[in-house]
Amino acid sequence: MATRTTVRRRCVRQWNTRKQMREERIAAGRGFATGKLVDPETLVDFLEAVLRPGDRVCIEGDNQKQADVLARGLAAMDPARIHDLHMVQSGVVLPEHLDLFDSGIAKRLDFSYSGPQSARIAKMLFGGKIELGAIHTYLELFARYFVDLTPQVALIAAVSADRHGNLYTGPNTEDTPTVVEATSFGSGLVIAQVGEIVDTLPRVDIPGDQVHFVLDAGRPFYVEPLFTRDPVAMTETQILTAMMAIKGLYQPYGVRRLNHGIGFNTAAIELLLPTYGEKLGLKGKICTHWALNPHPTLIPAIEAGWVEQVHCFGSEVGMEDYLAARPDIFFTGPDGSLRSNRAFSQTAGLYACDMFIGSTLQIDLAGHSSTITANRIAGFGGAPNMGSDARGRRHPSEPWLQAGAEADPDTAAPLRRGRKLVVQIGETFGEGNAPLFVEKLGALELAEKLDLDLAPIMVYADDTTHIVTEEGIANLLLCRSADEREQAIRGVAGFTEIGRGRDRAMVERLRARKIIQRPEDLGIDPLDANRNMLAARSIKDLMLASGGLYRPPSRFRNW
Amino acid sequence: MATRTTVRRRCVRQWNTRKQMREERIAAGRGFATGKLVDPETLVDFLEAVLRPGDRVCIEGDNQKQADVLARGLAAMDPARIHDLHMVQSGVVLPEHLDLFDSGIAKRLDFSYSGPQSARIAKMLFGGKIELGAIHTYLELFARYFVDLTPQVALIAAVSADRHGNLYTGPNTEDTPTVVEATSFGSGLVIAQVGEIVDTLPRVDIPGDQVHFVLDAGRPFYVEPLFTRDPVAMTETQILTAMMAIKGLYQPYGVRRLNHGIGFNTAAIELLLPTYGEKLGLKGKICTHWALNPHPTLIPAIEAGWVEQVHCFGSEVGMEDYLAARPDIFFTGPDGSLRSNRAFSQTAGLYACDMFIGSTLQIDLAGHSSTITANRIAGFGGAPNMGSDARGRRHPSEPWLQAGAEADPDTAAPLRRGRKLVVQIGETFGEGNAPLFVEKLGALELAEKLDLDLAPIMVYADDTTHIVTEEGIANLLLCRSADEREQAIRGVAGFTEIGRGRDRAMVERLRARKIIQRPEDLGIDPLDANRNMLAARSIKDLMLASGGLYRPPSRFRNW
Repeated sequence: MATRTTVRRRCVRQWNTRKQMREERIAAGRGFATGKLVDPETLVDFLEAVLRPGDRVCIEGDNQKQADVLARGLAAMDPARIHDLHMVQSGVVLPEHLDLFDSGIAKRLDFSYSGPQSARIAKMLFGGKIELGAIHTYLELFARYFVDLTPQVALIAAVSADRHGNLYTGPNTEDTPTVVEATSFGSGLVIAQVGEIVDTLPRVDIPGDQVHFVLDAGRPFYVEPLFTRDPVAMTETQILTAMMAIKGLYQPYGVRRLNHGIGFNTAAIELLLPTYGEKLGLKGKICTHWALNPHPTLIPAIEAGWVEQVHCFGSEVGMEDYLAARPDIFFTGPDGSLRSNRAFSQTAGLYACDMFIGSTLQIDLAGHSSTITANRIAGFGGAPNMGSDARGRRHPSEPWLQAGAEADPDTAAPLRRGRKLVVQIGETFGEGNAPLFVEKLGALELAEKLDLDLAPIMVYADDTTHIVTEEGIANLLLCRSADEREQAIRGVAGFTEIGRGRDRAMVERLRARKIIQRPEDLGIDPLDANRNMLAARSIKDLMLASGGLYRPPSRFRNW
Repeated sequence: MATRTTVRRRCVRQWNTRKQMREERIAAGRGFATGKLVDPETLVDFLEAVLRPGDRVCIEGDNQKQADVLARGLAAMDPARIHDLHMVQSGVVLPEHLDLFDSGIAKRLDFSYSGPQSARIAKMLFGGKIELGAIHTYLELFARYFVDLTPQVALIAAVSADRHGNLYTGPNTEDTPTVVEATSFGSGLVIAQVGEIVDTLPRVDIPGDQVHFVLDAGRPFYVEPLFTRDPVAMTETQILTAMMAIKGLYQPYGVRRLNHGIGFNTAAIELLLPTYGEKLGLKGKICTHWALNPHPTLIPAIEAGWVEQVHCFGSEVGMEDYLAARPDIFFTGPDGSLRSNRAFSQTAGLYACDMFIGSTLQIDLAGHSSTITANRIAGFGGAPNMGSDARGRRHPSEPWLQAGAEADPDTAAPLRRGRKLVVQIGETFGEGNAPLFVEKLGALELAEKLDLDLAPIMVYADDTTHIVTEEGIANLLLCRSADEREQAIRGVAGFTEIGRGRDRAMVERLRARKIIQRPEDLGIDPLDANRNMLAARSIKDLMLASGGLYRPPSRFRNW
């Protein structure tokens, strides 16, 4: 009966509409291509031929590499022909990404990161120019590519292609395999922009049978050197917080597997390992295995033998030759160059790291933190994924068990889970003298203004385990009430209004219980925090430390 | 100074020892191979030539596909030559996987799943024959492949290879891309067993430059049809719990994106969608997007138009032609056949699903559950990953927000996170009349016996949101104390000792608050739960529903 009904239905239902639609797109695109090779002169016509109004489109681009030529092509389309696209993309980074919404070519947006466009994207959201799906963390957006946000068309970027459409993505492999897998096996169309067409690829990152069209852009895709921090700009306060983190967190927990955020505070930690860390006898005991982009500031620690292995989300401009010369440390291909992979590195950051430490813009009294202000929506990137407790984790490690025991001393050990160390580090007053600690997050004001279901919180209070400022380390794991938590936060908030609002007696009690630790409690003299402690004090030092293998982008060169 | 020191050091330190070691292994293996093609007659000699004592080795195999010929080859090695291997692998499934430890070829083990070997592995752990690293959930183990458990040698399985070593993994792609990426780019050696060598592959799943040796096994790799549930064996109690789940959970939360466990209870839900679900008017409102293996019991729902998309961890024996004929629903390649991918499907289950529902063996009074008894260590597989709240998630959905609001009605909405629905479903007395509810989990006894840091809990109490038995649904989200939680659990535990130990008055109060819902509270008459409601009542029905495309393995055929 049920069976008979369904047999009858099957006669009328077609089950390959997606593949058929792809075939139609391919046929339409062929008018502007020779084989898979799109004629660059007709790029816009080609895109108008293969796209349909309302398509779900992924344009590749994250905080590093960008399919910039394809983005420009998209933005040049005629909105009368192609409109109302649903863009799903890691990064909203190029002006063209937002031009699409201004012109009406695109309508709806699901994304992760929007650093350089954070002010404009906020304005367009307020103005109703963009219909917001959601702001995701990278791995979460990738997950949805396989469930309810599978792209119908993906526009990706590679270094080179051969005549079969096999792609070489080189060191900046990043999101490409994930985007291609979801789109191509999901019966969608994959279009790649490449820097050149070659006879033989240095290695095959994407098999050609997953790629439908290739555009020879005649030049490399755009890459942003987002992870380069010039040691020249490091302040003594940042060096002090770095010393406190090493002695107050890395050492007592014995953190070996970790991820660092993008800021100067954590770059300072990297530069202190071969100096201050060495003095503390921590070599081999901390910071051996990383999920991390190839930060130039990690070079001195690598050269001094601190680092055993690094898996990278992406690459970093100028680090290519250095990475190729250090295959014992980095994942490299048969061509010798780095193979990065954002999906796997995020997975590593989620499940195989014991610590995430990063800077933020605002922290509230509960310990929620955010990089979003009421007028800037920078997105999340990878931080929420790495800066959250991985509750599916089932393997123990010492730092993880120790953090778990601090949070929950009463549960019997075998039923007590560990905790990932999630640390926020920063100065009490940040850029432009803005206080790090606030009564109400800008993210919350934004949620009210845009009537969002969720405020865009970067790291939630219940995932945050420690806050480090120049005034001290607050260990939130040891707090036993919301009150204690608030005072622990106020107690490291310095001369900000939040800091001045502390209950002094309670803060002293928290200090006695080591919930707050001052520099002097850690045996650190703030006067010792000076730039001489940095293993490299300039980009040139980093270049020299690499034996000339690191080639800094020109904007970082002053010699 | 720091710079000068490191320059000096760099002169003595070699940075390509791993690649050099791989070159040595390749050179040694070439004596038993023509190009990349290993002579099958000399497999054991070949393995002894490329392996080294103490190597970290990944043998591919999960709950489905197995690199069985390579496993047999490994087990036949001379332990005097190759010993003390550290095995890292998704599944300990074949006898040979454990023979390695009996003979001393292997010493240490990190794994995820050990279904069919659960009794023997327990014995060997008690006997000290295996040094246990940890038991992981799949995605967590994959994460460690990129951080601190990168394999030096991977032994994988594919359908076919061409003469360049390009691999076709077909519908059972599963773990292969992940294992190969970690090993090959991590400077390790990749050896593939294939069913045949062909001139042209149907599609390229793994580029040949990532594969170092290929063994023509002359026959397909072994696959276990683990996800086939014969409707003949479904009980009326299972049908009742399935009805309760649909009406009491799927409908009120509006669950569209989900994962089902492996048992009969959830298979019954799949078979009730086109009948009971249709009657409730739920088509298009629930169960549209899945992270799921291709369960044969999902065929009637797919044929009736319930399902929009399914992403698969692996394939299922006999489902190949059906999957190839339904590309609108399943992810398929240019060859037309399924492309599964365990890493991405687990990521989808973690971050893009609103519900995980599965069966378990034991639930305790707090709500912890486990499939491990004191004498059987079945491992975890994927359940802890999918059955845990994804705290890095930042996109809202209605089911997720509703569950979050139930758990925490007091926090202001924009700062309140949602919750993943994590549901345990089962009969109060399970197989062999063993009670589902226990005072103390076998997993806890095991942890004490083996002195483990962590009891192997499948799903922790604080991640579990609902428990469904034939007596009722307990909504743990609405419980406001540990006491209420315990009584909610006792209140659906039927005539088990735990159930009989309930506080009757409190249970009635919980029922009044809808924390416990009985079948009659849901408007379900247990007498309606009969086998006529199943959209298919036998494997033959499933085959017929598929229009003959599903070809059940012979062990499931009785016609």
